[in-house]
Amino acid sequence: MSGKVFTGQEVAQHNTRESCWIIVHGKVYDVTEFLPEHPGGSKIILKYAGKDATAEYDPIHPPDAITKNLPPEKQLGSVDLNTVEKVEIVVREEDKLRQERFALRPSMSEILTLHDFEAIARQIMNEKAWAYYSSAADDEITIRENHAAYHRIWFRPRILKNVTHVDWSTKILGLPSSMPIYITATALGKLGHPDGELNLTRAAAKHGIIQMIPTLASCSFDEIVDAAAPGQNQFLQLYVNKEREITKKFVQHAEKRGIKGLFITVDAPQLGRREKDMRQKFEAEEPDEMERNNEKVDRSQGAARAISSFIDPGLCWEDMAWFKSITKMPLILKGVQCWEDALQAYDEGLAGVVLSNHGGRQLDFARSGIEVLVEVVAKLEEKRGLRFPNDKFALFVDGGVRRATDVIKAVALGATAVGIGRPFLYAFSTYGQEGVEKALQILHDEFEMNMRLLGAPTLKDVVRDMVDASSVHQHIVAVPDDRLFHQNYEGIAGAQLRAAAKEQKARM
Amino acid sequence: MSGKVFTGQEVAQHNTRESCWIIVHGKVYDVTEFLPEHPGGSKIILKYAGKDATAEYDPIHPPDAITKNLPPEKQLGSVDLNTVEKVEIVVREEDKLRQERFALRPSMSEILTLHDFEAIARQIMNEKAWAYYSSAADDEITIRENHAAYHRIWFRPRILKNVTHVDWSTKILGLPSSMPIYITATALGKLGHPDGELNLTRAAAKHGIIQMIPTLASCSFDEIVDAAAPGQNQFLQLYVNKEREITKKFVQHAEKRGIKGLFITVDAPQLGRREKDMRQKFEAEEPDEMERNNEKVDRSQGAARAISSFIDPGLCWEDMAWFKSITKMPLILKGVQCWEDALQAYDEGLAGVVLSNHGGRQLDFARSGIEVLVEVVAKLEEKRGLRFPNDKFALFVDGGVRRATDVIKAVALGATAVGIGRPFLYAFSTYGQEGVEKALQILHDEFEMNMRLLGAPTLKDVVRDMVDASSVHQHIVAVPDDRLFHQNYEGIAGAQLRAAAKEQKARM
Amino acid sequence: MSGKVFTGQEVAQHNTRESCWIIVHGKVYDVTEFLPEHPGGSKIILKYAGKDATAEYDPIHPPDAITKNLPPEKQLGSVDLNTVEKVEIVVREEDKLRQERFALRPSMSEILTLHDFEAIARQIMNEKAWAYYSSAADDEITIRENHAAYHRIWFRPRILKNVTHVDWSTKILGLPSSMPIYITATALGKLGHPDGELNLTRAAAKHGIIQMIPTLASCSFDEIVDAAAPGQNQFLQLYVNKEREITKKFVQHAEKRGIKGLFITVDAPQLGRREKDMRQKFEAEEPDEMERNNEKVDRSQGAARAISSFIDPGLCWEDMAWFKSITKMPLILKGVQCWEDALQAYDEGLAGVVLSNHGGRQLDFARSGIEVLVEVVAKLEEKRGLRFPNDKFALFVDGGVRRATDVIKAVALGATAVGIGRPFLYAFSTYGQEGVEKALQILHDEFEMNMRLLGAPTLKDVVRDMVDASSVHQHIVAVPDDRLFHQNYEGIAGAQLRAAAKEQKARM
Amino acid sequence: MSGKVFTGQEVAQHNTRESCWIIVHGKVYDVTEFLPEHPGGSKIILKYAGKDATAEYDPIHPPDAITKNLPPEKQLGSVDLNTVEKVEIVVREEDKLRQERFALRPSMSEILTLHDFEAIARQIMNEKAWAYYSSAADDEITIRENHAAYHRIWFRPRILKNVTHVDWSTKILGLPSSMPIYITATALGKLGHPDGELNLTRAAAKHGIIQMIPTLASCSFDEIVDAAAPGQNQFLQLYVNKEREITKKFVQHAEKRGIKGLFITVDAPQLGRREKDMRQKFEAEEPDEMERNNEKVDRSQGAARAISSFIDPGLCWEDMAWFKSITKMPLILKGVQCWEDALQAYDEGLAGVVLSNHGGRQLDFARSGIEVLVEVVAKLEEKRGLRFPNDKFALFVDGGVRRATDVIKAVALGATAVGIGRPFLYAFSTYGQEGVEKALQILHDEFEMNMRLLGAPTLKDVVRDMVDASSVHQHIVAVPDDRLFHQNYEGIAGAQLRAAAKEQKARM
Repeated sequence: MSGKVFTGQEVAQHNTRESCWIIVHGKVYDVTEFLPEHPGGSKIILKYAGKDATAEYDPIHPPDAITKNLPPEKQLGSVDLNTVEKVEIVVREEDKLRQERFALRPSMSEILTLHDFEAIARQIMNEKAWAYYSSAADDEITIRENHAAYHRIWFRPRILKNVTHVDWSTKILGLPSSMPIYITATALGKLGHPDGELNLTRAAAKHGIIQMIPTLASCSFDEIVDAAAPGQNQFLQLYVNKEREITKKFVQHAEKRGIKGLFITVDAPQLGRREKDMRQKFEAEEPDEMERNNEKVDRSQGAARAISSFIDPGLCWEDMAWFKSITKMPLILKGVQCWEDALQAYDEGLAGVVLSNHGGRQLDFARSGIEVLVEVVAKLEEKRGLRFPNDKFALFVDGGVRRATDVIKAVALGATAVGIGRPFLYAFSTYGQEGVEKALQILHDEFEMNMRLLGAPTLKDVVRDMVDASSVHQHIVAVPDDRLFHQNYEGIAGAQLRAAAKEQKARM
Repeated sequence: MSGKVFTGQEVAQHNTRESCWIIVHGKVYDVTEFLPEHPGGSKIILKYAGKDATAEYDPIHPPDAITKNLPPEKQLGSVDLNTVEKVEIVVREEDKLRQERFALRPSMSEILTLHDFEAIARQIMNEKAWAYYSSAADDEITIRENHAAYHRIWFRPRILKNVTHVDWSTKILGLPSSMPIYITATALGKLGHPDGELNLTRAAAKHGIIQMIPTLASCSFDEIVDAAAPGQNQFLQLYVNKEREITKKFVQHAEKRGIKGLFITVDAPQLGRREKDMRQKFEAEEPDEMERNNEKVDRSQGAARAISSFIDPGLCWEDMAWFKSITKMPLILKGVQCWEDALQAYDEGLAGVVLSNHGGRQLDFARSGIEVLVEVVAKLEEKRGLRFPNDKFALFVDGGVRRATDVIKAVALGATAVGIGRPFLYAFSTYGQEGVEKALQILHDEFEMNMRLLGAPTLKDVVRDMVDASSVHQHIVAVPDDRLFHQNYEGIAGAQLRAAAKEQKARM
Repeated sequence: MSGKVFTGQEVAQHNTRESCWIIVHGKVYDVTEFLPEHPGGSKIILKYAGKDATAEYDPIHPPDAITKNLPPEKQLGSVDLNTVEKVEIVVREEDKLRQERFALRPSMSEILTLHDFEAIARQIMNEKAWAYYSSAADDEITIRENHAAYHRIWFRPRILKNVTHVDWSTKILGLPSSMPIYITATALGKLGHPDGELNLTRAAAKHGIIQMIPTLASCSFDEIVDAAAPGQNQFLQLYVNKEREITKKFVQHAEKRGIKGLFITVDAPQLGRREKDMRQKFEAEEPDEMERNNEKVDRSQGAARAISSFIDPGLCWEDMAWFKSITKMPLILKGVQCWEDALQAYDEGLAGVVLSNHGGRQLDFARSGIEVLVEVVAKLEEKRGLRFPNDKFALFVDGGVRRATDVIKAVALGATAVGIGRPFLYAFSTYGQEGVEKALQILHDEFEMNMRLLGAPTLKDVVRDMVDASSVHQHIVAVPDDRLFHQNYEGIAGAQLRAAAKEQKARM
Repeated sequence: MSGKVFTGQEVAQHNTRESCWIIVHGKVYDVTEFLPEHPGGSKIILKYAGKDATAEYDPIHPPDAITKNLPPEKQLGSVDLNTVEKVEIVVREEDKLRQERFALRPSMSEILTLHDFEAIARQIMNEKAWAYYSSAADDEITIRENHAAYHRIWFRPRILKNVTHVDWSTKILGLPSSMPIYITATALGKLGHPDGELNLTRAAAKHGIIQMIPTLASCSFDEIVDAAAPGQNQFLQLYVNKEREITKKFVQHAEKRGIKGLFITVDAPQLGRREKDMRQKFEAEEPDEMERNNEKVDRSQGAARAISSFIDPGLCWEDMAWFKSITKMPLILKGVQCWEDALQAYDEGLAGVVLSNHGGRQLDFARSGIEVLVEVVAKLEEKRGLRFPNDKFALFVDGGVRRATDVIKAVALGATAVGIGRPFLYAFSTYGQEGVEKALQILHDEFEMNMRLLGAPTLKDVVRDMVDASSVHQHIVAVPDDRLFHQNYEGIAGAQLRAAAKEQKARM
């Protein structure tokens, strides 16, 4: 980066496709040649040609993204921000309403469940952020199935156990955790809250929980590690770069910074089509504009596609040896979806697998992690004599968890711990760090209650026989309804107040 | 209790957290030290500091709760009620509407089913009372499953049996009962009606039904026993106190008063999170007030939590011997949820078990009693050669029953009798004792009809082959719907009146 | 009946409970002593004390009901109708609207399916009639299951069969029938149309279909037989009277009149609680009136209970020998619901059974006839080596049929023919005899189409392998939904017209 | 065709049932004797007696239909179009609105899925066209099941495969195809777009996809073949004519023109009752008119029945030898629905079968092609040792496909390729040829994504183990709901904004 200092006026002259400069955090970049390569399309950059793009840039790029992607000679220097014309951010009407609603958030003491954060977030979050967080692949069948699958598993609680003291703390890859959960990696935290992922780091510290740092965080990796309390354990989620040297550097840096486990994402060789996210793009634009830029608009496929083109679809089993050669961190595959691959991971000597479908954001009709868990446990016992939970080879699941009972079901079926993602995003999007703490407190309260009600003083007492998962593999769709029959059928009505009965007559 | 008589003015001076007196039923109590221990939180008491708290106290405490919980020296004396300023009860707008609707109740002759009481109760009961009675654990899956499970069981009726005379009377623990049901224990009867549990006692007497008296009744135990008719049989439901001496005294007193069976609750080491009940709390308060008292409000977790802190989570199988040592009453475990525990209860020589999940109010995703019954009957036959119904070891179920057909299904599957709770609460909340009598009359009529239609002259003829329960263990959740497809599908419409067809066109 | 002729004024004086005369069809009856015995309660008769009750009497009594039930001395004589004050029939507001809608019936050519008659009937029929026809037992689960069960059975059609000529005629108990269906017995035809059951008789003649005459017809048995065309075959449905001599006379009369089969109803020892029908009663009355007459209203339990007290709940297998001794007609049991009873009927030498639950009007949670058929066919083959359809022992089913495909499924599974009831009631309630003919024509057209599409030139080619009934025994209830999750989930939306998209924004 | 030229006035005189001439494309035809034979009924022709019927004729007849059906002497000559009075086409109000909405179509770049075309088509297509395209048999259960069945099949994706390059091209009957799909035959393309089937031909050329030409195309066979690009492959769907010579001529002509496969429809010996289509007929007419013409209206049973009377219901297995004698094209049966018939087709030496139920338009309760595929693959392996996909005997399926994942499931289960019909109709009805191209592009994008996510570099890697189809044969209908219970149950509500909570109170 040159030491040169520009004025706003100088920068403003480079406002065309032929010469396009932008300002980010007071630095000036020449992105003319980068325009066609920008994963989010050139249009969005051209909107800020010659201007300060910081506000748009921040929530969807890690701070160092621009310096990593531009050659040094395109990093032109600084700008005197006093000379830069303020970019007036046009806030859409809908987003104004959302901001107004922010002030109407209920008192946090009224938040009773993890669902509640989502109910509020849906109304107050910025539309684009909500679309990015809540969207999932195709028809969004799998995202819902992830939650629904837990409903096919029922409890067989035991009675007359002394549950005066109940303890649901555990160890995850040998590290202490106050609950059998961890905060799983989710991208673009600043979309929901200016502090982004740091909200998670700080709340995790308070509650003795492990955070998994995402590759696609809005905060930089080091910011997040720096925010950790002394002794706080963190994992790292890894998207593997086509350029392996970049990945090697990143991994070794992480190990040096004290990361305790490397979760390699294997279910995302390409990021999924998330239509809610894609559609949001169009709705945010003026139709006229779209007409004129059809081609370009076509390339803007939502936030997800904008940030992921570096991911290597060539990653394969052969790469595992290489990973072992560059790090001593335990290696876990994130995104395993059948027993065959779990078995291979075990045979390769990895430390575990996360049974996950990426929160339903990748392949629609992928099965839920909790369903796959049942298959994996059965087959790994049959083929290798393993029993779960297992210290040598950990099974994790994520996706769809909203209650401590969900977690307990997974533990009973053999999981070491469960990853929770979106609920914490919604917690900090609505109440910041305190929201995440409250979410963890709710889980704490639910664990206490439900361990007692199950008759399980410790997690070791949460055993296979405590659940009935015999319906978990059922994928039922009801026969389409017979409309004519149902239209004709007149439902029976119960007793009514007199007024109601009279009024109803009057209306007929 | 000292004989001292205070004036209202004297009491009114002790209206702070530092010195807090309250009046209940004309007696004065110093509850300053008790404030932090109050299971319902200190805030609700402080609202009545220096005042008469009777109206608030009554429906959620048994009359002797205060004297049992306060040391004698804190029971200061009486007050001259003429000198006490009337506490103006502020009735919320919504509750006023509900009271107005009370007058619009339909004639009792229009009540055709047990459902009807609930339909009316929902509209006319005090909001808090409705919330307490109707609420259940977490997502309220189990409370609904309790009813739904009966719908997975279908009849195989027999024909050409002489059913001129049908008789559905039975014996429960050797005691005569006009039907194979009993009134199970439910707390806080005065929330629904000033006479509370006495409505049940009196109606039970008229219909030859056994009432199970709850530990957490609004009326005192002795009031309820005193209200019994000569020869009327009653059971006692027991929450076991951390202080076993209290329990021992209570049990031995009950036996002396003629109680015929002791139902020890084993599914409630801690009372469940009932969010409808908890949320009602907040809605009843002003937001400002909540803000200021965040911490305290946090502790007010609905009526359920307010009344249950004495229950011993340490209760265990080892205690059974002690119970046998202190009473000769038959011992029944209430809240058994798997065959393993039913088997152990049998092996311990107990008189029976109630297969129950506490009306869905404790552990969500606990299975229904009727489903567990199928498993218990099969396993106890396999392991111990037992056949059910069985005089030596009785199986009861409760939860979700609304029709005589539900009861008959349970009997066919091996139950001795079925406990019914909420429907009777709704019956007296809407029509007092007469409501309960009508409810029993409806069941009577339904039994008569359905015994005939089943081809079963007596309960002995209601046998296993009369039901098909092969789907009872199915816990199905449909694959999430395909919204885009369904939005596009245009339902077929049937024939229409001409006017309708024309109007519909006009609207398009 | 005395020859005496009264004046209206004379009759009008007997208008009290102490002396109650009524006029029916110009005859005068003293019903004072009959008041307490009237199955429909005394109140309804007292309403007409001293007056002409014909209009009320007609639709719910066979013409000869009154002369059969009153001793000869209470049949006082005739009345000069000119002297009788006209009873002004008060038509309720709702029923006026329904009569107005009658004129708006669509052209019959617009009626495309059997469902269509019901869609129109629901809007134009007299409320009481609609309630009586459409109501069913308890929660009306079985009435809907009857139709739904057909949806669990799917076709396995064959191709490349020469289906130029398709023929779906058959023989029922040796008698020719143009389709494998018959008109099953349903009560009170005049509620829907002044010609009552005669609509069915005449349409059946035109289409070569057999009508089963109901015991509880609005027309008298002989009227219906007289209306038959030369050579037209009829069956008789029988409710067995507590006084067997009455039944014997009726049966032998029927045989003499040429009835070809006797269908003894065995699923109705007592008529079911049909709450829609019962509730209609109350809605038709003024609340004040109800208050004053609580007891009496309590006894008016809808049309069903009003007409059935003579039925003998003591009817049993032992009676079968007696039936054989009094008639040579083939004997069929109507209302068999499990294989055990079908087997016994076979072993008793009867001619067949109707697998039926009385249109869902008796025992709720009785299984559908089509489901029972699968069980019966399997077991009778296993136990007695029978193959179905079988000439010696016929299996019929009824309940829920709306399409020819339903019938074809039953035939494929072994039924000889299928009974259809309500659809024909709705057909004549909307369009009289022509409606019934149209209904039969629709079935005709559907049979032709579907026999071709199945690849079955004749009914003999409709074989077991043509259907997959493997899901028929499934009685599934989905796990209750997770409201909080579903409230939070934001469905994906498809592409929208621009106007729609803009408008939607505007509304937010 | 005589060379005579008429004036409009001359033709106009023949405007009665006794002498009925019509003009089509400038030619004059005497259709008097043809009136009673017209499959669409005489009424619709009489409406144009003496007039120019071209606008009505075009979309539902292939251009040569009239010359093929009328003897030469009835083809009278030409007309001077300048002398013909313009027939004013009365456009219905509803259809005007639809035309207005056409201008509001969203930009094509907003179309994200195949569902989107249908969402737009439903709003902008001519009502009659929409009814014809979207309608299906009876209660339209099967049309919906076709889609739903795919939802019972879930993926078991593999990880860590190198999916840098993914390739989903394949061969269909030895011919290259860029995807494992083909455009299946659908009738009456001009109802949706003036270019009709040519839209499909041209888009197929661009994308390297095979089009199957329908017998009932709106364009003539030769027009469609002429529109093909050099080297473009096409199949032909065949309805077999009662007059086999016509069929022979047609088939041999097709072979000469280069058609590469003959798909003989075997599931439509008679075209189905499609009530939405039939009902549309009536809605388009004035009620008065209908009354007067009851009989004739009765015969107009929608577009489907109007065009199909020539189809031979006598077609049978014996005809297969004849087909082999008249053509060397590979013969495929379209509409096989059970393994027995697939096996026979194999044994007869045919080239393959399409497992199809005609898009749900023929026999309701026919199973979906994808379900039948599972059965066929299992049985043909068991009986003949075949493995699928198989070059010698190809299995195709069609019906209900909307996503590349649907296609991939079929391929994993053994299909060679999948036919897609309606989605392309909706694509050209909304955006013409470009719409079809966009639809193919969407599928392209989805294939790329999902092949990666499945871990399958080529279609050969899409194997049986990649799907779980264990629920595919389940045909579940839930037990009818318990209305009284559900009406009483008060759903739990999540946290709310303060404003919302207050407003809700206000409303109560």
